[in-house]
Amino acid sequence: MKTVSENRCFGGTQGVYSHQSEATGCDMTFGLFLPEEAEAGPVPLLWYLSGLTCTHENAMVKAGAQAWAAQQGIALVFPDTSPRGEGVADDGAYDLGQGAGFYVNATETPWAPHFQMWDYITGDLPRVLFNNFALDEERQAITGHSMGGHGALTIAMALPDRFRSASAFAPIANPTVSDWGRKQLGAYLGADEMTWRRHDATIQMHERGFDGPILIDQGADDQFLDKLMPEALAAAMMARRQPGQFRMQKGYDHSYFFVASFMEDHVSFHAEALYS
Amino acid sequence: MKTVSENRCFGGTQGVYSHQSEATGCDMTFGLFLPEEAEAGPVPLLWYLSGLTCTHENAMVKAGAQAWAAQQGIALVFPDTSPRGEGVADDGAYDLGQGAGFYVNATETPWAPHFQMWDYITGDLPRVLFNNFALDEERQAITGHSMGGHGALTIAMALPDRFRSASAFAPIANPTVSDWGRKQLGAYLGADEMTWRRHDATIQMHERGFDGPILIDQGADDQFLDKLMPEALAAAMMARRQPGQFRMQKGYDHSYFFVASFMEDHVSFHAEALYS
Repeated sequence: MKTVSENRCFGGTQGVYSHQSEATGCDMTFGLFLPEEAEAGPVPLLWYLSGLTCTHENAMVKAGAQAWAAQQGIALVFPDTSPRGEGVADDGAYDLGQGAGFYVNATETPWAPHFQMWDYITGDLPRVLFNNFALDEERQAITGHSMGGHGALTIAMALPDRFRSASAFAPIANPTVSDWGRKQLGAYLGADEMTWRRHDATIQMHERGFDGPILIDQGADDQFLDKLMPEALAAAMMARRQPGQFRMQKGYDHSYFFVASFMEDHVSFHAEALYS
Repeated sequence: MKTVSENRCFGGTQGVYSHQSEATGCDMTFGLFLPEEAEAGPVPLLWYLSGLTCTHENAMVKAGAQAWAAQQGIALVFPDTSPRGEGVADDGAYDLGQGAGFYVNATETPWAPHFQMWDYITGDLPRVLFNNFALDEERQAITGHSMGGHGALTIAMALPDRFRSASAFAPIANPTVSDWGRKQLGAYLGADEMTWRRHDATIQMHERGFDGPILIDQGADDQFLDKLMPEALAAAMMARRQPGQFRMQKGYDHSYFFVASFMEDHVSFHAEALYS
């Protein structure tokens, strides 16, 4: 693991690190905020998965999460959204290839060798984090924005013992029937739509749900509502009697200004689960 | 005035607007955060002047100021740092020309026709703001980072009735004797160093001071300490018995992570002056 940068931030440290990943077969970069409390011993960890086009950096500099994480003594990890590099396949569109890993393990050409983001987020990166930093593996929570909200919810439901709480900002809620989903799941996983189902938060909510509290925020003026499909996930949560809440926020769009506006609520929500 | 974008943000609106400026003779772009309270009537205004290489956008997305401004019901304006465009002179270096206006009125070739940032910040832009938005001209305060801290302090001292409070993050404190200053003041204002003196916060602190409270934060691990010269300004403040405080923050560098870490303190500091 290599240290790219470290900056003092809200009494803690905002670091950027890179490491060779077995899963993706390339160098991966991530941001990690450690609160001051990490100097004394392991602290809880909140995962933040980012959306289409983002690297590890966008949320790290634009979501304002460190202020609240520092207040709560929680670490934040900001993974990249795909493998990257010259030897890694890509596509001209913003919503496929580099910057658009969709948190799945690709089985199809040309994506398969590197686009293994599910294994990276659930296997490789946790190993690097818990081996190198003062982080408490028993106290993890997960959130994300847009494609990252999709990743956070599907991963949380698939690994029921790992995360105490899950939240999302404007998640891609029902990708198996959305323009943000059918294209990517088809490209990465192939034509058999049965393999897509574990990567659809609405389907997973119907089939298994999450064994902890869930918080979803969605902007009512989001320019991508037709692709995000919040109504499907909200209906699934209510049908399942899933503990949690789905909030429709008047006037907000899909931007980081929306994410930043409700970040304090999300960090407080996770803190309650992480410290209970 | 043209609306470039508007996003709901912390219950208010983060806007970006452009307008033709008489002072700079070109289109200028600025960011303006209006808290929810501006829907009911004029709110106080905090100016944030940015540093070298920045546009109106950097602090608007990276400083985390809207959270605290919304809490206090204060508007924030984020001006650009120079004139811009094809017809505007520039220099290959990051610290001269576009992105580096230094908040002065240039008298020298090739800068003079457009580089009139002092007049822009103190004349043109205030006119646009108070004519178009629910802002209370009687309740203004000013802050800034690095070159913007220099601008905030020198403008606040030159216009003693305009700002109730002034603060700065890692300001260029003594530019007439610094590598960040001598080059630019020479280029923009010419060889007569007497004309530079009103643009040096340390000299102005010695000669006139500020008729309100001042708050300065400086990172102790700032990579540009030799150019910023905080010791000169701190000595001048104490020699003058200037009400205020100069804080040296252990471990912090020159980045926006430093600015964001202390933004809550600065907004609270200004709120106290603006609401008293």
